[in-house]
This record gives sequence, C-alpha cells and structure tokens, in this order.
Amino acid sequence: MSDIYDILIVGAGPGGMAAGIYGSRARLKTAIIDKGKPGGQASTTTEMENYPGFFRETTGPGVMGEFEAHAAQFGTVFLKGNVKDVSLEGEIKTVTTANGDIYQSRTVILAPGAEPRVLGVPGEGKLRGKGVSYCATCDADFFEELDIVVVGSGDAAIEEALYLTKFVESVTVIVIHDEGVLDCNKRSAEKAFAHPKFRWVWNSVLEEIQGDEMVEGAVVKNIRTGEKQTLEVNGVFIFIGSQPKTEFLKGKIDLDQWGYIPTSERMETNVPGVYAVGDVRVKYLRQVVTAAADGAIAAVAAEKYLEGHVEGRLTREDIEKLTIGS
Amino acid sequence: MSDIYDILIVGAGPGGMAAGIYGSRARLKTAIIDKGKPGGQASTTTEMENYPGFFRETTGPGVMGEFEAHAAQFGTVFLKGNVKDVSLEGEIKTVTTANGDIYQSRTVILAPGAEPRVLGVPGEGKLRGKGVSYCATCDADFFEELDIVVVGSGDAAIEEALYLTKFVESVTVIVIHDEGVLDCNKRSAEKAFAHPKFRWVWNSVLEEIQGDEMVEGAVVKNIRTGEKQTLEVNGVFIFIGSQPKTEFLKGKIDLDQWGYIPTSERMETNVPGVYAVGDVRVKYLRQVVTAAADGAIAAVAAEKYLEGHVEGRLTREDIEKLTIGS
Repeated sequence: MSDIYDILIVGAGPGGMAAGIYGSRARLKTAIIDKGKPGGQASTTTEMENYPGFFRETTGPGVMGEFEAHAAQFGTVFLKGNVKDVSLEGEIKTVTTANGDIYQSRTVILAPGAEPRVLGVPGEGKLRGKGVSYCATCDADFFEELDIVVVGSGDAAIEEALYLTKFVESVTVIVIHDEGVLDCNKRSAEKAFAHPKFRWVWNSVLEEIQGDEMVEGAVVKNIRTGEKQTLEVNGVFIFIGSQPKTEFLKGKIDLDQWGYIPTSERMETNVPGVYAVGDVRVKYLRQVVTAAADGAIAAVAAEKYLEGHVEGRLTREDIEKLTIGS
Repeated sequence: MSDIYDILIVGAGPGGMAAGIYGSRARLKTAIIDKGKPGGQASTTTEMENYPGFFRETTGPGVMGEFEAHAAQFGTVFLKGNVKDVSLEGEIKTVTTANGDIYQSRTVILAPGAEPRVLGVPGEGKLRGKGVSYCATCDADFFEELDIVVVGSGDAAIEEALYLTKFVESVTVIVIHDEGVLDCNKRSAEKAFAHPKFRWVWNSVLEEIQGDEMVEGAVVKNIRTGEKQTLEVNGVFIFIGSQPKTEFLKGKIDLDQWGYIPTSERMETNVPGVYAVGDVRVKYLRQVVTAAADGAIAAVAAEKYLEGHVEGRLTREDIEKLTIGS
C-alpha cells in the first residue's frame, strides 16, 4: 500500500497537469496517474497555436512537455497506471489500476478526458494532426484556401463546416443520407445549402484517407451504387461525436446522459472531495486553456476542502464565502 | 468615426488578450483598448510561476508580452485610450474614451480588471512585487522560511495568513483592533490563535515599508500610545479587499453589490452581445490562467452570437445546444 496523497489526479492532460502545478505548489502531496505519456489528447496535435502565450513554432507535445516539467518542478509525482476502479466515498479514497496497484488519497481530481469518435478508416490514425482533425476551433486556420472534406451532418458538423468556410477554399460534406437530408437543425441546413463554398456528396461514406506526410485525398464510396471516387483534398474534418472516458466511473459518481461529469463552478462533483476537470466535464468550450483553468480551480478548491476536512473546522458554508486570489 | 469591429475588448490583461487571440484567430475584426501598456495587473508581478507551461525565469511582464505578441500575430488591433463611457444596447455598441475617441463594435468584451486596495503608505508602491504582495496563492512560495507581516483581519486575510504558514517562518498580523478582536469568522480566528507560527500586534497600523531592492522592514505604529516599532520582515501581505474597475459601467450593465459583473458560464452579461472576463467577473479563483480561459470562452461565444445575430437565423436556443471544441 502506498502513501496517502493529498491530491490524486486521474489523467495527465492539460487539466490534470495544471491541477498538479497548483496542488504541489501549494505544498500538497500531489500525484498524477495516467496510463500513457503525459499530454492527453493535446499531445495528438502537431501544431497548437491557441494556448495563450505559446505561439512560436508550438506543437501539442511541446506545450504539454512544458506543463509536465512545470508540474514536476514543484514536486508533482507522475505515476503510471491504467485506472480501472475507484472508491470515492469517505475520507480516504482509493484508485486501483488494471494490474492491481492501489493508491490512496484524501481528494481525487478526475481528468480522464474525452475523445472524438473516430471512423476507423485506413489513413485516419496515421494522418491525425496532419490534415485529419476533429476540432475546427483548434485547426481551421491551418487550412487557409485549401479544399477539405467534412464527415457528419449533425448540428456540430454543419456549424463547424460553416465556421470552416471563413478559412478554406471549399468544403465537401460527405453525407450518408439521400440528397437534401441532413441530421442538423433546419437553420444551419439552410445556411449551408445557400453557401457558395459548400459541395455535397450524398449516399456516401468515407472509406480511406490518402497521403504520406499530409492528407492528399479522400476515397468516398456511394453506398447505393458501390461506386468509388477519390477527392483531392488537403484536410478531413470528422464530426461524428465525442465520448468521455468515464466507463470506470459508472455508479461511482453522477454522470450526465452522455457520460460527462457535471460540476459546480469550483469543479466539485456530487461526491465531497472529488473534482472533475477538462474535457470530461459538462462545459461549453473544450480547449487546453479552459482545461488548465479547471485544473487550477480544482486544486485550490481541494486545498480549501482539505483545510476544513482534516481539521474539522471549516463548513461548506464557510468555503462558499471564500473568494481566492484577489 | 472608426470602423465597426466585430469584437471590441475593454482592457488588455490576460483575459482581454486571450479573447483577442481567439477572436482574431477566428477571423473576426478584433481590437483591444487599454489606457496603459498591455498586461494588466499581471504585469505588476515580478515573478510569475503559476501560469501553466511557463516556469523558466518567468516574470509578469514577460508572460504578458508573450500574450500581446500572440494576439498581435493573429491580427488583434491594440488601441490606446482611457474608456470613460459605453453604450451597450442595440446591434452596434460604442465605447468612448476620456479624450473623445469613439469606437464601434458588434460585440463588447469587458475586461477592465480589479485591483487590490492599497494602504498608500511609503514604500508600498515601490516594493510591490518585491516583497509586497496582495495574493498568497500567487506569491506564497517566494517567502519560504522568511518572516512576513500580514495586514488585515477579515476572512480573506486570516485564511490567507493560515495558508502562508505552510511556507513562511512566521506571520505577524497587524490588527487595528484591541487584543483578541478580529474581523474574520470564529473558526479561522481559533485556528490562527492556536497556530505556533502566528504573532500579533494589536491596536496598530502599518506606517511604512522599508527596503531598497526588497522588503527589509515594516514600521508599525500603536494607535493608542503612538509608539512605533520596526519589524524585521521580508514580506508584507496586504489583504484589505479589492475593487473592480467598473465605475464607467454603472447603470449600463448589471453589477453585484461590490461592483463585480455576474456572468453565465459563457461569460454573457445581462446585455446581449456583451461579455465579461477576468478579475472583474464574479468568480471563485482570480488567476492569469482563469482569466485566459474566460477570454477564450467569451470570444467563441461572441463568434456564435455574431453568426446568429448578423444573419438573423440562430436563436439563443440554438446557441444553447452547441458545445464547441470536441
């Protein structure tokens, strides 16, 4: 059995590492556990130019490497492990990994992230961040005056495609339905149909993404005729939903109908001493900077919780009154 | 009369500049107006080591300089002006400066900041960021094993002093009241009185902060006897409240009883197309990273608002449904 941590963070993306920075800088015994290399989904992005302050030849792994070194400098412990189970009730909480390691902590910050749904077609994984994207806000301006394909026709897909028209030369939307049928709301559909940069391929699915270093083409198959065509494009944006990595939390903590974790403004979940940060939260904007802010807030909230909890003096009402940092 | 901006940001602190980065990167005509050099209150901090990712010899002005360059690179226009009046209703909003310049914009992001109340004693301004601090979360670990003075005895003052005991050798609290009388809640008072690192100077005020490059002493005067003593300390933490810079917004927008701006999770104020970010918001944790996240969120929300507003298609209900970035 290991030591008892003050803060144990599950997931080493930007939210988890920011919590590590704030937690260990506040002299709390802080650890982060992740099954992979620190960075989370942000590390899958080749170029990352919208984390405020970082803009000179920045890469996802580069920025995440700075977060990691920053947390380590203040003493955050990085643990390796694939978290499979948690016990969150009570004063001492436990986190258990797939190979049976058990870690104890007085507070837990959940930062497992969410991931875009992938198509699973050839070329998709290899070209991710090299023309294959799942986020228009993140990547639109890398595609200036280029031709791109969008997969999906729900609200997010068509809204994001409309946003992309400000940058790209053309947007070709691959739709599985019959001509004129989209899954999105009517207003967005009307806007897209009226837009001169939009092109449409109906009754079709994306079968393969071509290219070596960068996306060069998209192979599209008509599901009625079986006919295939290759579109010469430089980008493929896939908007078929995303899913939070919360399988291991089912029954342990309140999740919304899609599996995301609802929190208070202080990142509190419904379980005292347990917080959630980053993409796994129910939130408006999923970006590195918003994940980092979540992490800072959760660590400060955990510090206040520990202060009251351990010494049994501060009530939740007292905590409510506090505003920190100014 | 100037051009009409898509987004006009009032205040060039980290929140305002992050909004600039996101707004101009989304190809919106974006400007920031400030009466001083960009950076806001963050620029008054000599060392800044808790903005995630920046930790190598970082200074407040250094990090803020990176934000400024980042925003400028994407095309954010930096305007100079002391904003004295705003007109926020209607589709085109206006911002007027003290010397009569008028700027127009379709959306406005308010980021004027808040500032700690200062004592106004000799040495305080000169030694700010050099031993004089208004934020324990920001600066505590620069004072490891040193002796410090805390001015104030309200909830925030005593809570922050308790936090500082994890770092410093001793905390001497200067209290204007009679012995044993504090302005804070009873629980915090009991904790502080029981703590071995606390010392108390009653019936007293801080009269002067001494030191050339760094704080070296604090001159304290007993208001009953008139007697003065000089405490040899390396730090002075002043916790006598803070105030938002919202004089020019009174009657224009909803403010809380202390003058802060309440917002939704999307940084929306009560006026459509007007957002608030950073320290001026009603919020839990006031830090550079949380201001930056606010700015990113407000710019994305403004972009969605403009999309619906200008073309008259998206309703607020549509906007509610969207979740961006994943």
